[in-house]
Amino acid sequence: MNGRSKVIIIGGGFGGLNAAQALKSAPVDVTLIDRRNYHLFQPLLYQVATGSLSPGEIAAPLRGVLGHQKNTRVLMGDVRDIDPVSKRVLLSDGASFEYDSLIVAAGSQTSYYGNDVWQQWAPGLKSLEEATNIRHKILYAFEVAERLSDAAQRRAWLTFVIVGAGPTGVELAGAIGEIARQTLRNDFRSIRPEEAQIILLDGSPRLLMSFPEDLSRKAEQSLAKLGVHARMGARVTQVDRDGVDLQINGFSERLSSKTVIWAGGVTVAPLGKILAKRTGAETDRQGRIRVGPNLTVANFPDIYIVGDLALSADKNGVPLAGVAQVAMQQGTYAAKAIIRKVQGRPQQKSFEYFDKGNLAVIGRAAAVANIFGVHLSGLPAWLVWVFIHLMYIVEFQSRILVFIQWAIQDLTFSRGARLITGSASSDFNFDQEIASQKLTPKVTRDEVSVKVG
Amino acid sequence: MNGRSKVIIIGGGFGGLNAAQALKSAPVDVTLIDRRNYHLFQPLLYQVATGSLSPGEIAAPLRGVLGHQKNTRVLMGDVRDIDPVSKRVLLSDGASFEYDSLIVAAGSQTSYYGNDVWQQWAPGLKSLEEATNIRHKILYAFEVAERLSDAAQRRAWLTFVIVGAGPTGVELAGAIGEIARQTLRNDFRSIRPEEAQIILLDGSPRLLMSFPEDLSRKAEQSLAKLGVHARMGARVTQVDRDGVDLQINGFSERLSSKTVIWAGGVTVAPLGKILAKRTGAETDRQGRIRVGPNLTVANFPDIYIVGDLALSADKNGVPLAGVAQVAMQQGTYAAKAIIRKVQGRPQQKSFEYFDKGNLAVIGRAAAVANIFGVHLSGLPAWLVWVFIHLMYIVEFQSRILVFIQWAIQDLTFSRGARLITGSASSDFNFDQEIASQKLTPKVTRDEVSVKVG
Repeated sequence: MNGRSKVIIIGGGFGGLNAAQALKSAPVDVTLIDRRNYHLFQPLLYQVATGSLSPGEIAAPLRGVLGHQKNTRVLMGDVRDIDPVSKRVLLSDGASFEYDSLIVAAGSQTSYYGNDVWQQWAPGLKSLEEATNIRHKILYAFEVAERLSDAAQRRAWLTFVIVGAGPTGVELAGAIGEIARQTLRNDFRSIRPEEAQIILLDGSPRLLMSFPEDLSRKAEQSLAKLGVHARMGARVTQVDRDGVDLQINGFSERLSSKTVIWAGGVTVAPLGKILAKRTGAETDRQGRIRVGPNLTVANFPDIYIVGDLALSADKNGVPLAGVAQVAMQQGTYAAKAIIRKVQGRPQQKSFEYFDKGNLAVIGRAAAVANIFGVHLSGLPAWLVWVFIHLMYIVEFQSRILVFIQWAIQDLTFSRGARLITGSASSDFNFDQEIASQKLTPKVTRDEVSVKVG
Repeated sequence: MNGRSKVIIIGGGFGGLNAAQALKSAPVDVTLIDRRNYHLFQPLLYQVATGSLSPGEIAAPLRGVLGHQKNTRVLMGDVRDIDPVSKRVLLSDGASFEYDSLIVAAGSQTSYYGNDVWQQWAPGLKSLEEATNIRHKILYAFEVAERLSDAAQRRAWLTFVIVGAGPTGVELAGAIGEIARQTLRNDFRSIRPEEAQIILLDGSPRLLMSFPEDLSRKAEQSLAKLGVHARMGARVTQVDRDGVDLQINGFSERLSSKTVIWAGGVTVAPLGKILAKRTGAETDRQGRIRVGPNLTVANFPDIYIVGDLALSADKNGVPLAGVAQVAMQQGTYAAKAIIRKVQGRPQQKSFEYFDKGNLAVIGRAAAVANIFGVHLSGLPAWLVWVFIHLMYIVEFQSRILVFIQWAIQDLTFSRGARLITGSASSDFNFDQEIASQKLTPKVTRDEVSVKVG
């Protein structure tokens, strides 16, 4: 055992990974703990969900990324508790680790605002498993529709509802629009994929509320061209197997849809609630923990909170959003603060978020961007988007693969990763699904023959 | 409804897909039915299992491949029965389709020789789901070992047993050897990945029985360099959670291993048994159906069987192996026979297999090949292997992506697709696994600190 200062980082997302990397040459022993063995590039998760990219291309094994960093150890494990008094982290298998400094970057998860039963019908988009599940649902809906003759049933299978019109919801809706209009154009014989209805719902008065108003309008126009119908001011009151109930402009409405995706809201990871209880820290409605100007928890100067779990404000007092940029800058700040402490140097000045701007992509060669206050849309915004995303992908190999896939897709309209995987016996059985729902197979007994020519 | 001849193809593997493509310009209506929505390039499945490639790179959506072929329709469905008298195919959802000609390319599945309970401990390698499951098992074993202090437990987690020394078993063993020796070299702090034991078992007297003897020897030497211990003449008598029992040279032996992979044998798909019953056709021990010289079933000249399900012989009377080459040539042959029949032209001569040779790869830049009787090994064989595999990958995009991944891996020893995915709550929970097995976590209470330097 040596006497070096021990730093534990909980979470290998943008905040945790940036903190670990910023500690690379520091005279400390770093332990990064994550339930997953990989860092996930969440901003491109919607491209996995829509078959543009494969899971491996947006995920980087943490051991691979940090393997050459000699002062750092990666542990795969689930943190169950934190004792801020004895300064220990407890895993659910009983192992416990002491720290001198702790960086909590546990992130957030999808929130259904108390209606967790909706999750089974409307998956969120926070993990690779959810992304492949959503991909499966989207492609599967076209497969079922291809075999149905009943118009109403078919319409429900070809209606896609996305709840939440932030960047994720907008990007997802745009990508589904592209799949329907372009990618699957020649793939089916009975249905016309452009029959698909794509409906984007949000309770806010406009989409992309975090963007300037002119860009919201531009985004809405671009989405409309891809067949996406944005319906704002809509409150979802029920989600079930066959669709959603809404309240919109004082009226109740029912949307029949077999594919509902939840991009609606987030809450903190469960560990956040535990930590708030242990430290007595103040939290907001989402469960985020209030941090001081140097990102530590009140009364616990050795516990830093970064990323989605931290409640910190910009210089105007507006709470910072849960985006990668914030988490990365906070992770680096916390690491530097620890280095100064270990070296006995005075603390740096308060954390200040440097906002480089906002980006959302809407289908091929179209996006909206607010970069340092400059509003861009269409192709220029898209090029900025491509450049920035490629730049921030962690692994060199992934960067190349993603670039090539995008290039090929833009030339051919094809999507490489259109697989419906999953065990045929358990979670997915096409025929059982059709049979159990008493659907009307379209092509029984040769009543309908192949359309040729 | 038009009066064109109806061709149904069951299965979108090498045989079925080649048949469909050979019917491209024929005056027939083609329906290809598969439970999956993609064609799988099975020879590279072991690379998905060992983290070199992503599932999307070796699978091509059938609709994408056949979308531009106007006389062809793709249906996702599960064929439950075939009525050769009324000439109908019945799906499990109740839909039924009439055919004039039927090509059955239903393929094969893993056989445990009557011990199906072994499957839960020793997955086979026939599907993408199995490949990602095996990848998960391999990487997970290293993660667990990293956290154990008990030497015997650790050894069991670091012992990998592959049952079956055909090309799949050999390629898998070589790839695991590479992972242990090269890819994970810098990734762990407590274990040394080269501690891993990789044991390749087979009942035959030598590995790669379908290859000439000198190449078997070369393959064994190449494997030995990667730390793979080939033990021939070994019969597996039991597989359970903690390892395998063997009979070898008259002695009983127990191998403790947490990762057993079954590359041991195949049997026909369940539909094969049904078809044999319905047609009264002769079958062999594996359940393959005897076909005539033009690949049809006795008494049913409109039913062609191609690929792994067909029992046909080369000109010396030796049964053809269940490999891609055979299936592809048979699929094309069956398609041509149907075209001639529809056009009223005389039948072509009997099917004759044109054997281009055998290939197996053993790690990086090493392989064995028997090409038209020329025996190659080492780098030349590997180059031939790379060229042939890239040539036969169906989609242009996949071809490029696979090429780049191989190039990067050969330069950097890294593997892009090292993700442990799967739901943390259900099929995979690292901590529960450790806790439930009463394993000894290595790093409890800071007894062991990070190794630095």
